[in-house]
Amino acid sequence: MATDYTYEYFNVTFPAEYVAQVEINRPEKMNAFIEIMWLNLSTIFRRLSHDPNIRSILLTSAGDRAFTAGLDVQAASQGILSRDSADPARAAIAIRRHLAEFQDCITDVENCEKPVIAVLHSIAFGLAIDLSSACDIRISTADTKFCVKEVDIGLAADVGTLSRLPHAVGNQSWVKEVCLSARIFGSEEAQRVGFVSGVYKDKAEAVAEGLKIASRIASKSPVATVGTKELLNYSRGRPVADGLKYTQAWNSAMIQTQDVKDAVLSGIQKRSPKFSNL
Amino acid sequence: MATDYTYEYFNVTFPAEYVAQVEINRPEKMNAFIEIMWLNLSTIFRRLSHDPNIRSILLTSAGDRAFTAGLDVQAASQGILSRDSADPARAAIAIRRHLAEFQDCITDVENCEKPVIAVLHSIAFGLAIDLSSACDIRISTADTKFCVKEVDIGLAADVGTLSRLPHAVGNQSWVKEVCLSARIFGSEEAQRVGFVSGVYKDKAEAVAEGLKIASRIASKSPVATVGTKELLNYSRGRPVADGLKYTQAWNSAMIQTQDVKDAVLSGIQKRSPKFSNL
Amino acid sequence: MATDYTYEYFNVTFPAEYVAQVEINRPEKMNAFIEIMWLNLSTIFRRLSHDPNIRSILLTSAGDRAFTAGLDVQAASQGILSRDSADPARAAIAIRRHLAEFQDCITDVENCEKPVIAVLHSIAFGLAIDLSSACDIRISTADTKFCVKEVDIGLAADVGTLSRLPHAVGNQSWVKEVCLSARIFGSEEAQRVGFVSGVYKDKAEAVAEGLKIASRIASKSPVATVGTKELLNYSRGRPVADGLKYTQAWNSAMIQTQDVKDAVLSGIQKRSPKFSNL
Amino acid sequence: MATDYTYEYFNVTFPAEYVAQVEINRPEKMNAFIEIMWLNLSTIFRRLSHDPNIRSILLTSAGDRAFTAGLDVQAASQGILSRDSADPARAAIAIRRHLAEFQDCITDVENCEKPVIAVLHSIAFGLAIDLSSACDIRISTADTKFCVKEVDIGLAADVGTLSRLPHAVGNQSWVKEVCLSARIFGSEEAQRVGFVSGVYKDKAEAVAEGLKIASRIASKSPVATVGTKELLNYSRGRPVADGLKYTQAWNSAMIQTQDVKDAVLSGIQKRSPKFSNL
Amino acid sequence: MATDYTYEYFNVTFPAEYVAQVEINRPEKMNAFIEIMWLNLSTIFRRLSHDPNIRSILLTSAGDRAFTAGLDVQAASQGILSRDSADPARAAIAIRRHLAEFQDCITDVENCEKPVIAVLHSIAFGLAIDLSSACDIRISTADTKFCVKEVDIGLAADVGTLSRLPHAVGNQSWVKEVCLSARIFGSEEAQRVGFVSGVYKDKAEAVAEGLKIASRIASKSPVATVGTKELLNYSRGRPVADGLKYTQAWNSAMIQTQDVKDAVLSGIQKRSPKFSNL
Amino acid sequence: MATDYTYEYFNVTFPAEYVAQVEINRPEKMNAFIEIMWLNLSTIFRRLSHDPNIRSILLTSAGDRAFTAGLDVQAASQGILSRDSADPARAAIAIRRHLAEFQDCITDVENCEKPVIAVLHSIAFGLAIDLSSACDIRISTADTKFCVKEVDIGLAADVGTLSRLPHAVGNQSWVKEVCLSARIFGSEEAQRVGFVSGVYKDKAEAVAEGLKIASRIASKSPVATVGTKELLNYSRGRPVADGLKYTQAWNSAMIQTQDVKDAVLSGIQKRSPKFSNL
Repeated sequence: MATDYTYEYFNVTFPAEYVAQVEINRPEKMNAFIEIMWLNLSTIFRRLSHDPNIRSILLTSAGDRAFTAGLDVQAASQGILSRDSADPARAAIAIRRHLAEFQDCITDVENCEKPVIAVLHSIAFGLAIDLSSACDIRISTADTKFCVKEVDIGLAADVGTLSRLPHAVGNQSWVKEVCLSARIFGSEEAQRVGFVSGVYKDKAEAVAEGLKIASRIASKSPVATVGTKELLNYSRGRPVADGLKYTQAWNSAMIQTQDVKDAVLSGIQKRSPKFSNL
Repeated sequence: MATDYTYEYFNVTFPAEYVAQVEINRPEKMNAFIEIMWLNLSTIFRRLSHDPNIRSILLTSAGDRAFTAGLDVQAASQGILSRDSADPARAAIAIRRHLAEFQDCITDVENCEKPVIAVLHSIAFGLAIDLSSACDIRISTADTKFCVKEVDIGLAADVGTLSRLPHAVGNQSWVKEVCLSARIFGSEEAQRVGFVSGVYKDKAEAVAEGLKIASRIASKSPVATVGTKELLNYSRGRPVADGLKYTQAWNSAMIQTQDVKDAVLSGIQKRSPKFSNL
Repeated sequence: MATDYTYEYFNVTFPAEYVAQVEINRPEKMNAFIEIMWLNLSTIFRRLSHDPNIRSILLTSAGDRAFTAGLDVQAASQGILSRDSADPARAAIAIRRHLAEFQDCITDVENCEKPVIAVLHSIAFGLAIDLSSACDIRISTADTKFCVKEVDIGLAADVGTLSRLPHAVGNQSWVKEVCLSARIFGSEEAQRVGFVSGVYKDKAEAVAEGLKIASRIASKSPVATVGTKELLNYSRGRPVADGLKYTQAWNSAMIQTQDVKDAVLSGIQKRSPKFSNL
Repeated sequence: MATDYTYEYFNVTFPAEYVAQVEINRPEKMNAFIEIMWLNLSTIFRRLSHDPNIRSILLTSAGDRAFTAGLDVQAASQGILSRDSADPARAAIAIRRHLAEFQDCITDVENCEKPVIAVLHSIAFGLAIDLSSACDIRISTADTKFCVKEVDIGLAADVGTLSRLPHAVGNQSWVKEVCLSARIFGSEEAQRVGFVSGVYKDKAEAVAEGLKIASRIASKSPVATVGTKELLNYSRGRPVADGLKYTQAWNSAMIQTQDVKDAVLSGIQKRSPKFSNL
Repeated sequence: MATDYTYEYFNVTFPAEYVAQVEINRPEKMNAFIEIMWLNLSTIFRRLSHDPNIRSILLTSAGDRAFTAGLDVQAASQGILSRDSADPARAAIAIRRHLAEFQDCITDVENCEKPVIAVLHSIAFGLAIDLSSACDIRISTADTKFCVKEVDIGLAADVGTLSRLPHAVGNQSWVKEVCLSARIFGSEEAQRVGFVSGVYKDKAEAVAEGLKIASRIASKSPVATVGTKELLNYSRGRPVADGLKYTQAWNSAMIQTQDVKDAVLSGIQKRSPKFSNL
Repeated sequence: MATDYTYEYFNVTFPAEYVAQVEINRPEKMNAFIEIMWLNLSTIFRRLSHDPNIRSILLTSAGDRAFTAGLDVQAASQGILSRDSADPARAAIAIRRHLAEFQDCITDVENCEKPVIAVLHSIAFGLAIDLSSACDIRISTADTKFCVKEVDIGLAADVGTLSRLPHAVGNQSWVKEVCLSARIFGSEEAQRVGFVSGVYKDKAEAVAEGLKIASRIASKSPVATVGTKELLNYSRGRPVADGLKYTQAWNSAMIQTQDVKDAVLSGIQKRSPKFSNL
C-alpha cells in the first residue's frame, strides 16, 4: 500500500494497524520546506483524510538534526523576495494568492478528518510551529528547541502560528513574548505553557510514545474520533451555543452508528470491539 | 425551605447563609444519570437561579464511589440505541430533539445566574466532565479519576464537553489527547492543565473548601457576582470588542445599585456590608 | 524629545533605543487612578502608537508601594456615585457614555501598534488587572499582590478584565474563582496560571528584565512586530479561518517591505540589521 | 385531536391534512396579549413542533377588528410599570428575567420546526410585528394597518422586532423610519418593502390563501421542509461559509431519507408522493 | 446656542424643537470633502450625540448643485497620492492609519445616539454614499443622481459603502452592479431598491419632509428612540439570538424610565407627552 | 487562447477585451449537471480567477430550452441514492465529503476574484439558483422560469441557495415561501424582489446586455473591481465594524496602485485610462 503515498520529500509508512506515519524527509537541509513540500504535504493529508484504512496519523521528521528548520529561506528568497512589480497592489494580489495557497496546504493538516500527532525534535523553528499548531496533539523530545522565528526575517508569521496559537495555549503573555521576540524556548517551557502535552528523552522514545497515542486513538470507533476532532475544532474560537448547535446536527447522524452498539456490547463483554472502516 | 427543592435523585440543602448545596444522589449506581435526573437537575438550577435567598451553589455527589460514572449506559441503551427507524433522517430528527433537550438541561447549570462550584471526587467520567464544564469553578479530591469517556462508547461527547473544554482549558494538545483517547487522568494533571483550580485531600475536605469558596462569593454583592459570571461567560469565545460593548449595556443598569454605595461605605468603615436579596 | 510627552501623573522616558517607558506617577496615592489619568494614558499611547522612533513600550509605576491600587474610589464616589437622577434610564445612558469613554482609554493601550510590556509590583488591584490585561506581555515582582477587586465594591469589573481575562488565561475555573471572590493572589500563582510570564526578585530587576524584552522586540523589524501584535490580537476570540483570511490581506502589503530583504541578508552576513522607522 | 390543544385564548384546528391553524382568540380586546397568552402560545408551538401529524402551521386571529393590537398595555402597566424597587439594579435583573421569558416564548414560534404562515388583518400593532417577524411567511389583507408601536409607549421594541426586522426586510432606511416614528403603514407599503409577500382582498381570502400555501408546504417531504426552514434561519445573519458548513452536517443525515427516493420516483411516475410522519 | 456648533464648512441650526440640522457647506466646490471637513463632521456629531437638547438630526447640503460630489480628489491627490515611500509596507501602515481615522469620522455619524436623516439632492457621488449609508434614514429629490464612484478612480470604496450597503439594501445583484460599474442611477431606482425611502419634488420639499420625519422622531421619548437606533444597528449583521440577548441587557435599564409611565398616561389622556432631556 | 479553456460541457470564449464568457453546454439535457460538470466549472473559474487577461466573466447557457434544469437527478440517483451503507454514520460521512466537494465547486464561482454576471433564460431550476446565487450580478430574460426545486425531491437545498439567498434578497417572507413551496416564479417577480437586477426581452438581448455590463466592469481598474467584489462579499453577513477593519488591511496595499494615479489623471484629461493586467 505504501507505494500509493510516494511523494517527494516524504516517507509514508504504516507502523501499526490503522496508523499512518508521515515523515518529512529532507534531512540534509534540516527538513527545511520548499514549495513542492507543502504541496505534497497537502496531497498526502487530503488522501489520508479519506483513506478507509487510516484512523490516526503520526507526523515525524527524518534525521537527528531538526523536525524542521522552517521555510527554506534561500529558496523562498528566489520566489517572493525576488518578485518585482512596479505596482505594490499587483504585487499584493500575487502575494495574497501565494499565501492563500500556502495556508490552505497547512490547513489541510488541520482539516484531515483523522487525528494527527506531531512529534517534534531538535530544531523546530518557524514553519515547525505553524505546522504543528495545525496538528491535534504535540509531543517533543527533551532537547527540542522551539522558535516562532518569523520576526527575525522581517515578517509576521502568516501560515497559521498567529491564528492558531492564541487558541492553543492559554497564556497570552507568553504567546506574545515568544512571537514578538523570536526567543528560542525549550521543551520544559513548551510543556509548562501547554504547547506540547508530553516530553520524552529522545526521538526514539518520543516517536514510540506518539505511536502509542496514535494506536490508542486508532483502536477507538473512527466515527467517534473523527467527530471528536471536528467538534473540538469547530467549538474553538466560537461561542459555546454555536458549538452545541453544530454538535446536535453532527451527532444526529453519527449516533446512529453501529459502533455505539458494538462498543457498548464489547464493554459489557470485556472484549475489544472491532469497528469497520470509514 | 428545603422541602421546596425535593426532586428525585437530588438533595438540596442550605449549608450556609445564601448558599445552596445540590447533591446528586444515586450513589448505589455510582450516581450515573438517567433521563429524569437531568430533567430534575435543570428544574433545580432554574429555580435556584431566581431564588432570592441564594447567592452561590455547591454541586456535590452522594457517596464515596463516584461524583458520577456518567450516563447510565444501560438505561440509555434502552432509549436511543433501541430506537429503530427505517429512515435515518427521521431517526436523526428524533435524536436531535433528544440531544437539544439534554444539552439544554446541562446548559441550565451554566445559565444559572448564581455561581456554581463543582466538587468532584472518586470517579468523574463522561457526563461528569460535561456537567462540571458547565459549572463556574471546579475543585476535586486527590484521588479523583477523570475521563472524557464518550469515544469508548462510539460517540463524540455531545452534551457540552467538546464545546466547553476548548474554552476552559488552555492546552489544546492535552484537550485533544484526553478527548480522543479516553485516557483516565488524575487530579494532579487536572490541576496542572487548569481543569480544576484546587485539589484537596478527601471529599470532606474538598466539600469544606468548596463551601468556603461558595460562602465567600455569597458574602459579596449579588449584583456584582451575578454580573461577573454573566460577563465572563459572554466574553468567552467572542472578540474582546463584543465583550466590552455588552458590558456597557449590562453595567449601565447594575452600577446604579445601592450595593456600590453600601460596599464602599462598609470598606471605609471596616465592616461587612449587608446586601439585600436579588 | 521627552518634553513632548509631558502629561500629568505620567513620566515618559526613553531608556533604550526605540523603547519608551511610561511610568504611572501618583505614588503618594498608591498610583490610584482618577479620570484625568486614564485620559492622559490614552493620549500617551495613541501618540506612541504612531511615533516613528518607538518600537516597544514598557509600562511601569512610580514608587514601591503599588503598581496601582486601582480606581481612586473616593474620587470616583464623587463622580458616578453622587450622580443623582430621578430616572434610571437617563442615569443608565450617562453611565454608558462614561463607561464607553473609560473602556476606550484602556483599549487604546491594546490598540497601540507597538508591543507593550507591563511590569507589575507590590499592589496590583482592580484597574491594575484591567489595564495590564490590555498590555501584550505581563511580568511581575515576587512580592506582587494581585486582586480582581471590583466585586468588593459591588461591581462587575467593566473596563476590560472580564472581557480580556477569559482569552488571556487558559484556566477558566481559576479565572472565575478570582473574579467572583476578589481573592488576593501572588506572583507564583499568577505565573502558574499564565497571567504573568515572568517573576523577578524585586522592582529593579523586573524593570530591568522588562527593558530587556522591550529592547529585544525593538531590535526587530517594526513591520514584523506591529504585524505580529495585530494578527495575534485579531485571531483571539475568532474562528481560525477568520484569522487566516485577515492575515492574507495584512501580509499582502507588509511582506513587500524592504525589511525582509535586509533581515535575510543580515542573517546570512551574521550582522544586526538596521530597519528604518515606521 | 383538537382537544389536545385546548389553551385559553387560542383555538387550534386542523383545516387540512398535516396543517394546523392557531387562532389568537381574544377578539373582544382586539386580541391584545396578556402574559398567559404568550405562555400558551409558546406551549402550543413547542408541541406542534414535534407533532408528527403536523407539517405546516397557519397563524391567524379571531374577529374582524385586529390581528392583534399588541401588548395589553393596561394589564402590563399593572405588571412591569407598577414594579417598584428602591434599587435600579435589582429592578433591572427582574426585568431581564421577564424579558428573557417573553422573548423565549416568541422565539418558540421561530424555533418551531414546521413552517409558520402568519395571516395579518385590520390592526397589526406592536407585538403583532414582533410575533409575525418570528413567523416564516407573512401575508395580509388589503386593509391591514401595521405599526411598530413601541416608541409610542416610551420603549424600544424588545421581544424581537428590532432583532429580526433588519434581517427580514432589505430596506434599512424604511425599517429605521417606521421603527423610530411609529408611523402606521398599510399593506401596499408592507408588500413593496417585503415585510409581507402577499396581500389579499379581505380576511377570508387571505386565510384561504394562507391555507393554500400551508397545504402546499404540507404536501412536500417534511424532512425537506423542516431542513429548509432550519438552514434558512441558520444562514441569516452569519457569513455564507458558516451556513454551508452547517448544511453539510445537517444534510449528511437528512439526505439518507427514504423521502428522496420516494419523491424522485413519484416525479418519474407523475404521481403525488406520500411521506411518512416526522 | 448655534454659536456652539461653529465649524468650518458646516452650518448647524435648530429648525424645530429638539431637532438639529447639519448643513454641509462648501457649495462652491460642490460640497466636495477635504480632510478638515470629515474631522469637523465627526466633532459635530459626537457633540450632538450627547447634547441633551437634541433628539434627531437632519443632514443636508448647501446649494443646488450637489449633496456632495464626494472626496475632493484634487486635494486628496496632494495627500495620499503624493505620498512617496520607498517601502510599500511603511506606506501601507501610513495609509491604514489614515483610513482608520477617516472611517472613524464617518462611523461617528452612525454611532451618534440620535437618529440622523440624510436629505440628498442633485449630485450624490462617492463619499455621498459612504456618508449617507451611515445615516439612519435617507430621502432624496426627484433629480438626485447617485453614484458609487470609487472604482472610477481606481479604488474599492473604503470609508463605508462596501461594508454598509450589503446590509442596507436587500438586492445584492443591484448592489454589486452599481458598485462594480460606477453607473449613475436616479432617485426612482434608489427608492425601488430601498436605498432611499422617500423621493420628493425638489430640495425644498425634501428638506421639509426630512424635517417632518425628524420632528416626529423628536416628539417621542428620547430613551425610546436612542434605544431603537442602537438595537437595530446592533442586530444588523449578527445572528438573531445575539440581538435578543443584547436587547435584554439594554432594556433592563431603559424600561425603568419614567417615560413609559408618562407615555402610557398621555395615551390614555389623549395628550402629547413631554419627556425630559437625555 | 480559447484552447486553454477546453473542458467538457463548457465553451469558454472571449467576446470582448478582458471579458470571458463561460457557456454551460449540455443543451440536449437542458444543461442539467452531472458531476464532471461542476468539477470542470470549478477548474474553469479557478483559472479565470488568476488569468491576467480577464477582468469580468459572463456565465450563460447553450440552447433555448434552459439555463439549467438543475442537477441531473437520474445521474445523481445512481450516485447518492444508490449508495447503500448498513451504517447511517458511515453513509453520513461519505455524503458530507461529497457535499463539501460539491459546495466547494460552486463556491469557486463566488471566490473567483473577477466579477461574474449570470444571464438566466427559460428554465432556471434547482442548481440554477444555487449557482447563480454564487455569481455577483444576475439578469434574466422575460420568459425565465425560476424554481428552488429541491424540496420537490425530498431535500433541503445544500449547495448554496439556502445559505446565500437570505443575504441576497431582502424579503425573507418571499425567500421562505419559494424555498418551502418550490413554487415556480417568473422574471417580473424575480426582479421585484431583487433576485435579478435586470430583465430583457430574449436571450440574445439579455446576453448582449450582460456583455455590456461585463465590458463596463472590464474597463475599470482591475485592482478596484477585484477589491470591490472581495469587500462586498466579506461584509455580507458580518457586523459593519468587521467589514471596515478588513477594508483597512485590504486597501492599505491596494491604494498604492498606479491605477489610482492613472485613473485620476485620465479623469482630468477626459480620456479612457489603460490599466495593466492583474
